[in-house]
Amino acid sequence: MEQSPIDKLINNISKLPGLGRRSAQRIALFLLKNKDKNLSPLIETLNISYNKIIECDDCGNIDMQNPCNICTNTSRDKSSICVVEDVSDLWTFEKVGFYSGLYHVLGGSLSAIQGIGTDELRLQNLISRIEKNKVGEIILALSTTMEGQTTSFVIADKLEKFDDLNVTRLAQGIPMGGEVHYLDENTLNTAFQSRKKIT
Amino acid sequence: MEQSPIDKLINNISKLPGLGRRSAQRIALFLLKNKDKNLSPLIETLNISYNKIIECDDCGNIDMQNPCNICTNTSRDKSSICVVEDVSDLWTFEKVGFYSGLYHVLGGSLSAIQGIGTDELRLQNLISRIEKNKVGEIILALSTTMEGQTTSFVIADKLEKFDDLNVTRLAQGIPMGGEVHYLDENTLNTAFQSRKKIT
Repeated sequence: MEQSPIDKLINNISKLPGLGRRSAQRIALFLLKNKDKNLSPLIETLNISYNKIIECDDCGNIDMQNPCNICTNTSRDKSSICVVEDVSDLWTFEKVGFYSGLYHVLGGSLSAIQGIGTDELRLQNLISRIEKNKVGEIILALSTTMEGQTTSFVIADKLEKFDDLNVTRLAQGIPMGGEVHYLDENTLNTAFQSRKKIT
Repeated sequence: MEQSPIDKLINNISKLPGLGRRSAQRIALFLLKNKDKNLSPLIETLNISYNKIIECDDCGNIDMQNPCNICTNTSRDKSSICVVEDVSDLWTFEKVGFYSGLYHVLGGSLSAIQGIGTDELRLQNLISRIEKNKVGEIILALSTTMEGQTTSFVIADKLEKFDDLNVTRLAQGIPMGGEVHYLDENTLNTAFQSRKKIT
């Protein structure tokens, strides 16, 4: 039997990340309750997004231009590339605003379970960028999950062939504002092993 | 400054019920990451929904036809109308499936805070239905919140003028599977006051 448009709508919404069937149902009813006020503007925005938002061939960011705003910004430091898993990580860096170099969005991290190997990530692309441009530092800003750390190691390994290239990663330890008695074993251990002299 | 399409997309998604800015961002990236696989089908479904799904003038249900599937179903008992706050409540009844009468969707309950008065609910419409058709019972299946109960009283009051019309409400008491020591004061009190003789 063919699905009714209502079922199809709920199904499609429930496929969005973080939404279950009940929240999808709620959203569907919200959209249908006042179609011209709620549904119509959403369709319009989605259409514009579909047509205008594109991926940057250089760094993997999404923007209205290719290369993106950040890659073409002449005031940014082109000798530094910060490697992140996702565009949302890039946004977090940009929101805080202390970093003025370029980015490279991998599109995830290596994961056997999710079937993400080195070919699924924008790794070859990163290597080409380093080959073509004068890059002094690659900052690996990946998650400290098992997958993120594996990915960091694999990238660091692949970048070893470049002399004069510093490959760094974010410091690991107690998060600011963190209380010692709430820390998990792993973090405490890492923070202890990497302790620094107070100067 | 005009919003960028990306910001507009995130903003529009975050207006959906139950979604905050972070989940909206996650959904936006999911949609943009693979536009043809994720975004395009969603736009299509929303377009179909916009064009095909309509509200039933009789009961307020949403369907592909007006009057809706339920109102036109000749095998349903037209002498009974179950009044619900929302279409999702109607769906809950239909999923369980024990009720074979008609429905009337109010579109909410009376709420001073949300600015919902009797004119915002489909109340006049309910009265016309009773006037035009031979209705024997109105079942008020509203929430037992303050708003829901007020709404029940107001409706019951307005329906008093109809002789031969039974106005009923759902029984209130311990939910099935409920444990007495977990019950809130109100429920326990109601259940105690409405105790029934075991026959």
